[in-house]
Amino acid sequence: MTTPISSPVLVFAGHAQGEAPLPSWNEGSTKQSIVNFVGGVTTPGDVHFVKPEDRIAVFDNDGTLWSEQPIPFQFAFVIDRLKEIAPQHPEWKDKQPMAAVLAGDLKTAAAGGVRAVVELATVTHAGMTTEEFSKIVKNWIATARHPKLNRPYTDLIFQPMLELLVYLRANGFKTFIVSGGGVEFMRVWVEKVYGIPPEQVIGSSIVTKFEMLAGAPVLTRLPEVDFIDDNVGKPVAINKHIGRRPIAAFGNSDGDLQMLQWTAASTVSRFALLVNHTDSVREFAYQASTLGKLDEALKEAAMKGWTVVDMKHDWNRIYPFETA
Amino acid sequence: MTTPISSPVLVFAGHAQGEAPLPSWNEGSTKQSIVNFVGGVTTPGDVHFVKPEDRIAVFDNDGTLWSEQPIPFQFAFVIDRLKEIAPQHPEWKDKQPMAAVLAGDLKTAAAGGVRAVVELATVTHAGMTTEEFSKIVKNWIATARHPKLNRPYTDLIFQPMLELLVYLRANGFKTFIVSGGGVEFMRVWVEKVYGIPPEQVIGSSIVTKFEMLAGAPVLTRLPEVDFIDDNVGKPVAINKHIGRRPIAAFGNSDGDLQMLQWTAASTVSRFALLVNHTDSVREFAYQASTLGKLDEALKEAAMKGWTVVDMKHDWNRIYPFETA
Repeated sequence: MTTPISSPVLVFAGHAQGEAPLPSWNEGSTKQSIVNFVGGVTTPGDVHFVKPEDRIAVFDNDGTLWSEQPIPFQFAFVIDRLKEIAPQHPEWKDKQPMAAVLAGDLKTAAAGGVRAVVELATVTHAGMTTEEFSKIVKNWIATARHPKLNRPYTDLIFQPMLELLVYLRANGFKTFIVSGGGVEFMRVWVEKVYGIPPEQVIGSSIVTKFEMLAGAPVLTRLPEVDFIDDNVGKPVAINKHIGRRPIAAFGNSDGDLQMLQWTAASTVSRFALLVNHTDSVREFAYQASTLGKLDEALKEAAMKGWTVVDMKHDWNRIYPFETA
Repeated sequence: MTTPISSPVLVFAGHAQGEAPLPSWNEGSTKQSIVNFVGGVTTPGDVHFVKPEDRIAVFDNDGTLWSEQPIPFQFAFVIDRLKEIAPQHPEWKDKQPMAAVLAGDLKTAAAGGVRAVVELATVTHAGMTTEEFSKIVKNWIATARHPKLNRPYTDLIFQPMLELLVYLRANGFKTFIVSGGGVEFMRVWVEKVYGIPPEQVIGSSIVTKFEMLAGAPVLTRLPEVDFIDDNVGKPVAINKHIGRRPIAAFGNSDGDLQMLQWTAASTVSRFALLVNHTDSVREFAYQASTLGKLDEALKEAAMKGWTVVDMKHDWNRIYPFETA
């Protein structure tokens, strides 16, 4: 028996002292590219050495740190929340895209495009204070279950990426999430699950308004998009939030392309990696999801020599709950 | 002789091992309120104990960490920059507020209100990439001199606040700047001067656009306001950027009131402080500056028991270059 360790991240990552890093990564060129990069930037005197304060690593979330099938997990939250508050909105029975979602017809809802998604997001994410919203998400993430795997969504994080986060931090990196997902949706659970504190989470947001409510200051969430942290928005958000260019970026779709381009164009040593979902048995095999395709980014990776993870072959373990 | 220390922040803060903290703060209730607060939040078992990860402290910059008279220092940058690029803009001769500023008539320029300030800021801060802008600011901050004190602006930081930053960080706090100033203007020099890394600087911003220029990704600064980080904007920005509520906030004007309210309403131990500029001899004595008044915030401080620094009496040293 081992002594219990308090941090779930460290437990999951199996980062016991003296253990070789990245145990869930099979030996090969993919793993080697990571180890070589980290070795270079952390070796004083090496031509690739980077000062610790400049060791910034940015990670997409959906499909990069956790699964995103059959639908992105925050969309599952949207659907559950919509059903929960539908009784207070009888008018939704005749109003798209809400009516379609409530009837279980995601295809019709999706036909409304970005406008429909934005409407669904704002009606479910706005109309309460930031603290109330945190409680709603906290409750959902603790109780919701993945439709096929029947597990909490936070079980469906990638063990190899967890090890990578721990490995990078152990080597002086500051790890950030840069996701198209809602920033206040993620902040509720990512610290516990990935060991990434709220101030290192960048995401999409809706407008909040400061006001005094019964003498107490609150931030009220309004049904209006503030920022979409995807595609060209990612480098913009990185610059706004972090204020220096990352030296390592990790993504899994064309929505991450600009973030990888921005990172890879750094004048110091840099690293760009794409996760390619190739494992239909242990996870899901797809080149396109609700969140976008992996097409342009893959072409650029081939051209520029970026690392591409072939999940089926590069990872010997997908989720933390699988035995190693 | 002592061994040279590499960090200018530590040198300025005089934080040698074993030395009592806050040497530039006179003994008294102001200093005691800080020491008591820090003692409480850092003592395990104390009713005021706060976990290290929640020890977030936020600081306004102009008038709180450095001087802001006779005009806010970023305004001096605006004027210098306007003069520098004026030859490329002959049309400014007949266009306000640029014509007034170029003629040295700040009063007429200021009569244009917020709209004039925004126009001056955007014409001088936009139209280049983020990297080009950094170089412009870096060059200016290295060469510009305060009109009365004839010193670099970065000399005019408050020694007691520098000690406070070091003291808080030594006690597990993460220190952030939350300023109405331009975020990319500050990030160029604050790390060296205050020891605050770029990712812990929050400020006002203009819109940037990701684009490929000759095959290289750049962020181009556009003449359009993105966010004004003042008044009600401060808690909004804190929530967006940090994602948790600070437990300590430091400001000097009514533009900081909402940030102090938001911080002071925390359910854990909290601290709010206002710097009152009362020293006409060593610094400047004023209750209102170009950046706003100190009026409502002072009333609320009295009502709520927040700490108010009386610069003349509470600080035995104002600037680092003064001998202790």
